Amino acid sequence: MEIRLRPIGVVESGLPEEGPRVDRRTFVSTVRIFDEFSAGLKGIEEYSHVFVIWFMDRVKETRITLKPWGLEDMPEVGIFATRFPPRPNPIGLTVAEIVSVEPPRLRLRNLDAWTGSPILDLKPYDVLDIVQRPKMPEWLKRFLKIK
Amino acid sequence: MEIRLRPIGVVESGLPEEGPRVDRRTFVSTVRIFDEFSAGLKGIEEYSHVFVIWFMDRVKETRITLKPWGLEDMPEVGIFATRFPPRPNPIGLTVAEIVSVEPPRLRLRNLDAWTGSPILDLKPYDVLDIVQRPKMPEWLKRFLKIK
Repeated sequence: MEIRLRPIGVVESGLPEEGPRVDRRTFVSTVRIFDEFSAGLKGIEEYSHVFVIWFMDRVKETRITLKPWGLEDMPEVGIFATRFPPRPNPIGLTVAEIVSVEPPRLRLRNLDAWTGSPILDLKPYDVLDIVQRPKMPEWLKRFLKIK
Repeated sequence: MEIRLRPIGVVESGLPEEGPRVDRRTFVSTVRIFDEFSAGLKGIEEYSHVFVIWFMDRVKETRITLKPWGLEDMPEVGIFATRFPPRPNPIGLTVAEIVSVEPPRLRLRNLDAWTGSPILDLKPYDVLDIVQRPKMPEWLKRFLKIK
């Protein structure tokens, strides 16, 4: 079975692939929704945050297990126990803050997609997406400096 | 541009399409990951919650705008301002609670996918996915009975 999707838009200005590292938490990306779909943005400005489902089109490799960040002192874990890119389906999922909406464009903070990445879907974030105390593995808490 | 994806698994036992309505918040679904990818589950039991990215393969229609739940007293909004199915790319996204992991199967609470739906990806939920007070439109707050 093969599933075929088409981009609904593109990251016009996103994280640079080269050069100095950018802090995604403050960086503002511009996403353009293609004209045939841009009426689908109507009312999205009533939300503060949106899930961006995008396609990591530069990923050429698939890993089923890996050590997070390639670090030797990390445990070997399955790809579905991580958010790393070399997945069987390289779908990106990011919670982004809506900075402004001027159809067909949105400006979004915290998106970690490169310029040119295809957008597959946008879904508003709502209270049902909040998990108050999610359990996470020790290796991730160590990285995020969480007790 | 066309994007081709392949299922990594299937909802073996999910919400029934017919019969009495089931409360998804308590219903436990079984997802089976295909053998070639099942090692990718290693360590996923260290998380309490996971994003399930699935394909709404029964959606035959695309809407760019709609009235939520088809109700006349709702405003007309864009599809990307809702989570409703008739999207240009009918990708489902659900935060599910991990009940148990016995590879190649997971039991998940709160998944709103029908039996037989293809699974595209699993991504663990972490603290960076929490938005403490997301802004939402009045029509959604009215539905969720939130002030």
